[in-house]
Amino acid sequence: MFYTDGKLQYPVRVEKPNPIFARALQQAIGGVEGEIRVMMQYLFQGWGSRGPKKYRDMLINTGTEEIGHIEMLATAVALNLEGAPLSLQEDVANDGVAGAILGGMNLRHILSTGLAATPENANGVPFNASHVYASGNITADMVANVTAEATGRALAVRLYGMTDDPGMRDMLSFLIARDTMHQQQWLAVIEELGGWEKALPIPNSFPQEQEANRFSYAYFGHRTDKQVPAGRWTTGPSYDGNGKFEPMISEPLGQEPVLAPPRPDSGAQTEQVKGGPATPQAANDPTMGGSPNVA
Amino acid sequence: MFYTDGKLQYPVRVEKPNPIFARALQQAIGGVEGEIRVMMQYLFQGWGSRGPKKYRDMLINTGTEEIGHIEMLATAVALNLEGAPLSLQEDVANDGVAGAILGGMNLRHILSTGLAATPENANGVPFNASHVYASGNITADMVANVTAEATGRALAVRLYGMTDDPGMRDMLSFLIARDTMHQQQWLAVIEELGGWEKALPIPNSFPQEQEANRFSYAYFGHRTDKQVPAGRWTTGPSYDGNGKFEPMISEPLGQEPVLAPPRPDSGAQTEQVKGGPATPQAANDPTMGGSPNVA
Amino acid sequence: MFYTDGKLQYPVRVEKPNPIFARALQQAIGGVEGEIRVMMQYLFQGWGSRGPKKYRDMLINTGTEEIGHIEMLATAVALNLEGAPLSLQEDVANDGVAGAILGGMNLRHILSTGLAATPENANGVPFNASHVYASGNITADMVANVTAEATGRALAVRLYGMTDDPGMRDMLSFLIARDTMHQQQWLAVIEELGGWEKALPIPNSFPQEQEANRFSYAYFGHRTDKQVPAGRWTTGPSYDGNGKFEPMISEPLGQEPVLAPPRPDSGAQTEQVKGGPATPQAANDPTMGGSPNVA
Amino acid sequence: MFYTDGKLQYPVRVEKPNPIFARALQQAIGGVEGEIRVMMQYLFQGWGSRGPKKYRDMLINTGTEEIGHIEMLATAVALNLEGAPLSLQEDVANDGVAGAILGGMNLRHILSTGLAATPENANGVPFNASHVYASGNITADMVANVTAEATGRALAVRLYGMTDDPGMRDMLSFLIARDTMHQQQWLAVIEELGGWEKALPIPNSFPQEQEANRFSYAYFGHRTDKQVPAGRWTTGPSYDGNGKFEPMISEPLGQEPVLAPPRPDSGAQTEQVKGGPATPQAANDPTMGGSPNVA
Amino acid sequence: MFYTDGKLQYPVRVEKPNPIFARALQQAIGGVEGEIRVMMQYLFQGWGSRGPKKYRDMLINTGTEEIGHIEMLATAVALNLEGAPLSLQEDVANDGVAGAILGGMNLRHILSTGLAATPENANGVPFNASHVYASGNITADMVANVTAEATGRALAVRLYGMTDDPGMRDMLSFLIARDTMHQQQWLAVIEELGGWEKALPIPNSFPQEQEANRFSYAYFGHRTDKQVPAGRWTTGPSYDGNGKFEPMISEPLGQEPVLAPPRPDSGAQTEQVKGGPATPQAANDPTMGGSPNVA
Amino acid sequence: MFYTDGKLQYPVRVEKPNPIFARALQQAIGGVEGEIRVMMQYLFQGWGSRGPKKYRDMLINTGTEEIGHIEMLATAVALNLEGAPLSLQEDVANDGVAGAILGGMNLRHILSTGLAATPENANGVPFNASHVYASGNITADMVANVTAEATGRALAVRLYGMTDDPGMRDMLSFLIARDTMHQQQWLAVIEELGGWEKALPIPNSFPQEQEANRFSYAYFGHRTDKQVPAGRWTTGPSYDGNGKFEPMISEPLGQEPVLAPPRPDSGAQTEQVKGGPATPQAANDPTMGGSPNVA
Repeated sequence: MFYTDGKLQYPVRVEKPNPIFARALQQAIGGVEGEIRVMMQYLFQGWGSRGPKKYRDMLINTGTEEIGHIEMLATAVALNLEGAPLSLQEDVANDGVAGAILGGMNLRHILSTGLAATPENANGVPFNASHVYASGNITADMVANVTAEATGRALAVRLYGMTDDPGMRDMLSFLIARDTMHQQQWLAVIEELGGWEKALPIPNSFPQEQEANRFSYAYFGHRTDKQVPAGRWTTGPSYDGNGKFEPMISEPLGQEPVLAPPRPDSGAQTEQVKGGPATPQAANDPTMGGSPNVA
Repeated sequence: MFYTDGKLQYPVRVEKPNPIFARALQQAIGGVEGEIRVMMQYLFQGWGSRGPKKYRDMLINTGTEEIGHIEMLATAVALNLEGAPLSLQEDVANDGVAGAILGGMNLRHILSTGLAATPENANGVPFNASHVYASGNITADMVANVTAEATGRALAVRLYGMTDDPGMRDMLSFLIARDTMHQQQWLAVIEELGGWEKALPIPNSFPQEQEANRFSYAYFGHRTDKQVPAGRWTTGPSYDGNGKFEPMISEPLGQEPVLAPPRPDSGAQTEQVKGGPATPQAANDPTMGGSPNVA
Repeated sequence: MFYTDGKLQYPVRVEKPNPIFARALQQAIGGVEGEIRVMMQYLFQGWGSRGPKKYRDMLINTGTEEIGHIEMLATAVALNLEGAPLSLQEDVANDGVAGAILGGMNLRHILSTGLAATPENANGVPFNASHVYASGNITADMVANVTAEATGRALAVRLYGMTDDPGMRDMLSFLIARDTMHQQQWLAVIEELGGWEKALPIPNSFPQEQEANRFSYAYFGHRTDKQVPAGRWTTGPSYDGNGKFEPMISEPLGQEPVLAPPRPDSGAQTEQVKGGPATPQAANDPTMGGSPNVA
Repeated sequence: MFYTDGKLQYPVRVEKPNPIFARALQQAIGGVEGEIRVMMQYLFQGWGSRGPKKYRDMLINTGTEEIGHIEMLATAVALNLEGAPLSLQEDVANDGVAGAILGGMNLRHILSTGLAATPENANGVPFNASHVYASGNITADMVANVTAEATGRALAVRLYGMTDDPGMRDMLSFLIARDTMHQQQWLAVIEELGGWEKALPIPNSFPQEQEANRFSYAYFGHRTDKQVPAGRWTTGPSYDGNGKFEPMISEPLGQEPVLAPPRPDSGAQTEQVKGGPATPQAANDPTMGGSPNVA
Repeated sequence: MFYTDGKLQYPVRVEKPNPIFARALQQAIGGVEGEIRVMMQYLFQGWGSRGPKKYRDMLINTGTEEIGHIEMLATAVALNLEGAPLSLQEDVANDGVAGAILGGMNLRHILSTGLAATPENANGVPFNASHVYASGNITADMVANVTAEATGRALAVRLYGMTDDPGMRDMLSFLIARDTMHQQQWLAVIEELGGWEKALPIPNSFPQEQEANRFSYAYFGHRTDKQVPAGRWTTGPSYDGNGKFEPMISEPLGQEPVLAPPRPDSGAQTEQVKGGPATPQAANDPTMGGSPNVA
Repeated sequence: MFYTDGKLQYPVRVEKPNPIFARALQQAIGGVEGEIRVMMQYLFQGWGSRGPKKYRDMLINTGTEEIGHIEMLATAVALNLEGAPLSLQEDVANDGVAGAILGGMNLRHILSTGLAATPENANGVPFNASHVYASGNITADMVANVTAEATGRALAVRLYGMTDDPGMRDMLSFLIARDTMHQQQWLAVIEELGGWEKALPIPNSFPQEQEANRFSYAYFGHRTDKQVPAGRWTTGPSYDGNGKFEPMISEPLGQEPVLAPPRPDSGAQTEQVKGGPATPQAANDPTMGGSPNVA
């Protein structure tokens, strides 16, 4: 259950409102690197958490922090929209030289909300929960969370660079610091559970002898020149202690796939149905509906 | 530029076709944990790669491998659909006791494709490129890639457990092995670039003195009982060598946000416009349009 | 800023776990009638609230309650999934007679989350913030909120009817009661702002003399038989006190639209460009690229 | 079944074409406040209407009107695009001072349609039928329809304010008038069915003694300062005549949720499986995989 | 402007309601092969039509027909849902042997609409206007329309095969006939505009000497075995009369792409910035941050 | 299985980088007319191909070519972003007169990728696989493919017109040429399978005597003035040789639909349930809950 105190976690202030920057800030609200995403991700991970309870508590606790980050950013968007042009006439009047503001705005900031934030990204695309990870595997989730905070911090850093408003930079310096911490935090869970060696391969509960081990530590080359891009991934021990990296030219181990011909009543064309079996042999046999390749 | 040989990377065979399993396999094609995603992710990361070229090569090379994984899975879906019921009558006739097959199918496997795969997940939701990460930050991307392979391997392991078809298990044992390798591979890049200590915080190119350092290694407690879930994340050195973890009760550092009243011509209700300023003071002042809280 | 205590707002208990009911419950989490929607809607309305501050407080307060409803439902989904089949073999073994469970499940409950909730609806479609209303007009928002709670209560009532599990019915009886209150609550705001008469037409800040008043209280008939479906909407005073309802046969007041021909360099076919002007006159003139209608 | 006469319901004319305004108008076509939405909503409500037939007729009749509104707006978009720049060179040549037009356009107006409307909103996001309400409950639907027309009229009013083109303002004055009527119309249905008192709580067919009545008229406070935002919603009779509003501090009535540990074969990490039961007791017990909170 | 008469274009009757078939029918309403799509496509093509007016009229006329097809199918869905189970108990009681109906249903048919149609496909995915073609090029649009009617007829044929209900088969026999006509109709426009030879390549208004003619009639081989799949596309005259088909092995004409290194302030990792130029030469030079390929 | 050589199929070079053009190019990557779409479409068609094998080979071969087109365009986007402004200050400094660049950019090109391409369209909407056709009917698929290449070539031609950069025009001249060929190629398959006459109606495997033949070659008029837009589609032989086109006024052959009243426990309003049967007769009978139409 949740509570609020109506105050902001950190001060949000805007000295020179800028409606284009309001649009940019939306990426931190509803973008794939944004705060709605992490809020949802940490809370759903927590609510579905199975195993030691402390992780549930920690996840929900941090998920709760993130709700307040959305609140800060929504406030920042609204403040950057104070004074934005509401009409094409006003736009030209205000800013006849440096270019139209209105054309660069998220027009829904005028048309749909009356100068307030939306749950969308910087291009006005609504938040979509398809990109929320809560896998039921705690290590996979922790890596997903580092991803979220790494891309989130990259985003915050870019927003910081985009503006020179002191209020906005102050707010972003706080969000950047929190992203620093959260990257650390998820890595700390991996350490606590035994570290990378014990964690890998994720999930580590699957008996590794059932996988096709021959290919478990091979970097496959798919280049036509048979060169394999080399690096730490082609040499040295694997991080789970179970193998050694090696380069391997990938070659087809399977055959050309053959599907049954379509059934007569399945909505295919008649020519497909009676076109002969789709075998590799048939393909080069003109009497079977095939025709020779051009060498 | 890309080439094919028309063969499968690894054999795909199905002994007992099962249309429900065909639906499940779709998650590995078009789901958030699936192969279309990694193909797109690695290729877009490679195509936009800035900095040392070897990473570009490695990414595109592995992205190329993933196209073949989609091919294997699409073949597996089609083979599991051989013999699927095309009609409600056929469905009942075939399987009067153990329950209807058709009700559990992705109906588009009958209606839209004539018994073949779709670029969708296990619930029939089309693949959506919103969840493709190519951040321009190589370490953030590597973590995103470990996420993809960790959730991908969890998915493959669950599919393996869902079936007892020897052909399907053989195919999945290969995909599981490749996911093992790919988890390793992305971690190897991080090692090669200097390891976690050097990589953190991501992006490491932002001058850390510009962030609000006081909060950079603090685990914030947002519980009303002032308890802070404890763990490695509340004690010990940070992984970038720059700080020490500590627990901290989160308290509001900002005030209640105040937005300007709506402009008269902005589509708000008149009562909002003339309702008095939205200050915290006004809120409890009935003469300002506010009304007292109930204590 | 937000806080939690890790407890549920109301007890959630499941006596007979049912994975199909878990799928149904997802509609109350991620569906258009669900709790993610209202949480987002009330919070974004509050965060963007302009005008008297008390409404902001009230909205954020109730938005905070809704986060806890998602938590209850996510818990209910996880509890209904306890014991769900993880494999096709297990499914048939458990339930050889009454029909396959697994086919009716949200397969992502197995494949993506390891038996926990997702931010999706009952068909497995991810939550999508396109259907969040925060219009900047307080009355429009209140009506949107009644909509949310009316459809939400209809959903909860249908879920109540779908199950006979005493624990689930108890939880739903609470959510239904809250929906009852929330419908009332949003109507109370409309009363407080002066009631429907004063509120209409929404937005009431637009000078009504600028609208085409002749059509402001007319119910238009679009039936070919010139019958107009009659009711309170065709007779009696309007609810804003400004007019009287009347039936009116809708007739075209505008002409056939005419667009300029495509520019030669705009990607159209040459025949379009040189096909003659798209005037109504030209349309029946074969020499202008037209051809006569068949009477 | 449907018919057309090829004419516009109301004249559409544009004196000074403006491609940015064309983008803005798209919100009224494909936005959440737009005409595709209401057309779909009223028609699907009508087609699925159960109970007295007159409502079906009225809904389909008005849904039919809305198709013509899309037609008017699509025409307005095309007319606003006449003369739009097709190239970056043309753009700069035409408008070297006041700023680039092309950057502010929906680029699909050039690239995808050759200067015509799309079924998208003002940000170029395609219409998505997830936000169409047809609930099978007539009162819920009527409230949804008032929402649609209230947000629709707010949008039309904002578009009216954005332009000073006399033709566009004339067209919008008509659409605004129709939105006025349609708000009234849906309220008239509620009156006809007995008015709000009888309608509430929606659905009114559920036996209210089965809901947790203690909470049916309580406004819950979720603020940490135990203040409850006061208003009509905390005092006075409820609108259904069944209760009295009261403020109530929300306190957790449920316990901390406990899920079973993950099954060994469910794709979790081994450490989760063997991490001990996830009981609240265990959480503070280091021997059970938990660790003490930091007080 | 549009009109209705409240009647169905063709009788819709269901003898044995089947809720699974109701789900299947949704594909014909909201699927990519469905009627919402063609209605939108023909109307938007008509509304944006530039050039000879008769095509506008014809398109809007047929678009108007399609609205009535949605109406028929929505009615068919509702009738197939009469008597559907509303609860899990009812489901088991009705159908203890042949398998659960409810698990195979679109649960929104119960939960969201009270037994009526939704604007969704057979998997419950909402209609999405991203797949509406109105290109501004009449021939491209006609081909898109043949696609719509070809896939639409395939769908209708598959639905026909899926049921043995005489009423449903009768309705589908009508829709199949209309799809037959509509395929013809769009081809007739191409003939009228001069036929395929004149129409190709689409758009035919672009001066073909500006394209890289050497590659305009070559079928490219991308197989590693240098075999080129042969057929009419590798030999004989082209359909526009401008060339001759030939097979051609595709070879890279471009070089390896080189992007500038990331800017120091762009959110990349420091190692990318200082990693040396991303030239092909550098890639194999360890002193430049590269490392040799494994041959 | 797939291979790469890391080189571009055709040279990509940009003389004057233009970030607005980078946004436009995205339509050719992730738009409905773009290359991700055709790659997916041809590969899924090939992977699910049933019937003569040569078509499978041809499809996969061309699908492989398309991957390289995405690569070219992603490179072109990145090159057009070299030198783009990263901040609002930089933007104004660089370009104080001709208008702000940054407002017209896809902001994710700065915020999410660090100056590289995304899998999105020109409005920043992510690619969505709902618009991929792989129908299992080879002729329907070929028509879908001509659509893709016709709209793709229209797009490429429009991009060509939008820029005067010699490098970009050179690249586009190649892509335009390939679209020319691909339009031809899919038509060649139709010829090879017997040509249009034999192919129609698609699917040609359904016994045409089961369709409602009376309506199979009739162009329906839905205009209230009973005029039928005339053309080749109202006269002359059909293209399958089975009928003759004729104009026909569409008249309702079905009755007004009647659905059963809602069940008492289905979440409807009580007034709907007891409102009397929804028969056409009842609708005008006030004693049955109906009310008379206004004539």
